[in-house]
Amino acid sequence: MKLQLALDTLTLEECMTLLQETRGSVDIAEVGTPFIIEEGMRPVREFKQHFPEIEILADAKIMDAGELEAETAFKAGADIVTVLGASNDETILGAVKAAKKYNGKIMIDMIAVKDLEARAKEIDAMGVDYICVHTAFDVQQTGKNPLDELMIVNRVITHAKSAVAGGVKLATIDAIASEGAAVVVVGGAICNAKDRAAAAKEMKQHLK
Amino acid sequence: MKLQLALDTLTLEECMTLLQETRGSVDIAEVGTPFIIEEGMRPVREFKQHFPEIEILADAKIMDAGELEAETAFKAGADIVTVLGASNDETILGAVKAAKKYNGKIMIDMIAVKDLEARAKEIDAMGVDYICVHTAFDVQQTGKNPLDELMIVNRVITHAKSAVAGGVKLATIDAIASEGAAVVVVGGAICNAKDRAAAAKEMKQHLK
Repeated sequence: MKLQLALDTLTLEECMTLLQETRGSVDIAEVGTPFIIEEGMRPVREFKQHFPEIEILADAKIMDAGELEAETAFKAGADIVTVLGASNDETILGAVKAAKKYNGKIMIDMIAVKDLEARAKEIDAMGVDYICVHTAFDVQQTGKNPLDELMIVNRVITHAKSAVAGGVKLATIDAIASEGAAVVVVGGAICNAKDRAAAAKEMKQHLK
Repeated sequence: MKLQLALDTLTLEECMTLLQETRGSVDIAEVGTPFIIEEGMRPVREFKQHFPEIEILADAKIMDAGELEAETAFKAGADIVTVLGASNDETILGAVKAAKKYNGKIMIDMIAVKDLEARAKEIDAMGVDYICVHTAFDVQQTGKNPLDELMIVNRVITHAKSAVAGGVKLATIDAIASEGAAVVVVGGAICNAKDRAAAAKEMKQHLK
């Protein structure tokens, strides 16, 4: 299981320090959506240059112009690009086309998808690499967590691998690890920890 | 009716020239999603500085972290920020909160929303400024156009104003204008015209 570190609200400089501190624990560095809105593809280029051993994910949450927007991220050096499960099929297929061209991967973010089981089945047949269940930041306060959704996706996928995001922390990581996912996304539980290197290392150990 | 010019695939320099050429015809300059993915908020800052008389829309297509992401765009100088209709209610409400703080506006992009009528009614009650029907770029090739969807939204809204996007061109603008919308978004029909100033002027005249 890979550990993906979501970088959302730190500055580029702070992220570089954090990725240095957590080297060896983090498999995938996520340039988060708020970070892209502020900085565009600059962090993708910088991370790729300075941390060539880590995969870089651009959390672009693509909703339209799938081929064009995914291509922009792959060209900048992203290894993985996210597309929304709520988008039209054509958008997902366009992004998959771009991924093939650049030897990259597509992760589908299932945030706010209404019929998760049916949509996961459809998307599983489209040639994507990951289907990620994702409890929105904006609804995490309700106590919702992505474990139940992960179980649904794990049950129906036959081609794609599963991923999981949304408030994952030390208290919930073992349940997720035993359910199983190819990628586990952690943000605040590492970024806001007192000792971020230790937090990342511990998280990664729970994913063995 | 306001004319919104969508700037998606041009460089920042080309956009500055285009906005200069179309001065007086364009009411809202849209920093398109592909542009944000590449450049972040830089175009918003530049447009705001050089074209203070035009409203600036950041087509961030927010799907989560509504308050935080909308705040990022408003802080950069955006007058209007887009949020996806497919997002959770909490995300839309968070963005509305940010808009109130910064005296900005929220436009909801209804792209790929399944039950348009029901969702438009729900969102109309959330305090947003615009509800925009939007035929995805990725499905425009099917001949689909947003007029039918505009009629649905116009019928159900009582608080928000309507907007319309997705392949609007000279051949379709009159039907849209007679149906009525507060904002009509045009991209390719101006950006790819031989004489872009004339195309923008003509579009604007059809919206009187």
